[in-house]
Amino acid sequence: MRRGRTFIISGPSGVGKSTVLKALLDQRSDIYFSVSATTRKPRPGEIDGVHYHFVSVDTFRQWISRDEFLEYAEYVGNFYGTPKRFVDDAMDRGQDVILDIEIQGALQVFGKRPDTVRIFIAPPSWTELERRLTERGTDSPEKIQKRLLRAKVEFQTAHTYDYFVINDTVENAVGELDAIMTAEHCRPEERMEIISGR
Amino acid sequence: MRRGRTFIISGPSGVGKSTVLKALLDQRSDIYFSVSATTRKPRPGEIDGVHYHFVSVDTFRQWISRDEFLEYAEYVGNFYGTPKRFVDDAMDRGQDVILDIEIQGALQVFGKRPDTVRIFIAPPSWTELERRLTERGTDSPEKIQKRLLRAKVEFQTAHTYDYFVINDTVENAVGELDAIMTAEHCRPEERMEIISGR
Repeated sequence: MRRGRTFIISGPSGVGKSTVLKALLDQRSDIYFSVSATTRKPRPGEIDGVHYHFVSVDTFRQWISRDEFLEYAEYVGNFYGTPKRFVDDAMDRGQDVILDIEIQGALQVFGKRPDTVRIFIAPPSWTELERRLTERGTDSPEKIQKRLLRAKVEFQTAHTYDYFVINDTVENAVGELDAIMTAEHCRPEERMEIISGR
Repeated sequence: MRRGRTFIISGPSGVGKSTVLKALLDQRSDIYFSVSATTRKPRPGEIDGVHYHFVSVDTFRQWISRDEFLEYAEYVGNFYGTPKRFVDDAMDRGQDVILDIEIQGALQVFGKRPDTVRIFIAPPSWTELERRLTERGTDSPEKIQKRLLRAKVEFQTAHTYDYFVINDTVENAVGELDAIMTAEHCRPEERMEIISGR
């Protein structure tokens, strides 16, 4: 049985990453979408193991000291991290894994696992990203400009990623993600092993 | 407009490469299948510019001296080569180009054009390759064993290729080729340029 692979998906706020990932997961039910661990308290309706793995600060510290995270970070007083265990279990079962994480986290994961594939979801244009952020209606014009600037800075760092998927339409973006996942299973390392044994 | 990219397709005798490429070209009419130049005389039914570009030894020599080949080789007294010109014209028109060449030729092309994508078509198993060679009925058992051995040697060299497509069924192989071609157009170099300009 072929082993699963891990795909990091990053992208700026407003690019439509969640919508694209939802559509991808609807289409490919064999994918494991990584659930983060956090020390934040659950909000009403949030289920342990589904939205997050909710753990105590002590547990989180223990996991860090045992090197049980692929990446972790602090955000407004709470800790968030990707536990290795669930990712490895899924890959052993043959499932591809998606990590929905930011560039900083991606760098940590890539440092530990250089065979992780990094995909950046980009807007078709900056004007279009601004339009989407405005249409969302959750941010002030100042906040939108700040997000746009941040996206442009991120974009410069993202040149180290393996792939850029442009979210012009959800259908195209999902098609490209699916193609990348198929292509990455055609790498010689994986295939030589299969064929050599026969 | 996006520029085309060049894909080298190699694979051992009997793996079914021609069938796979025919099916791919039927499905994706936008691909340019590179036509080689040769000093060999045309056989009955062969059309200049379709099966080969038939040229004189003098012309071939001139093209070599002007660095007009991506790769070339001699085979039983005749010269064969891939002219740069038609490949470049196709890529400029936005067409992806397929070069159906052997590992030696692939090395030459890759030396000149490191952004060329190299795909090796492999059999699902050695037993299956032997079965296909036997079924073809064109070779003696000794010749088949020689081809098998050659395929295994080639396979060891082919680990430097970017992708291995396993021809278990034509449909799967074409699907993987198509996915690889889509994925390779999602490379940051190509996409950064598009987005930066907007």
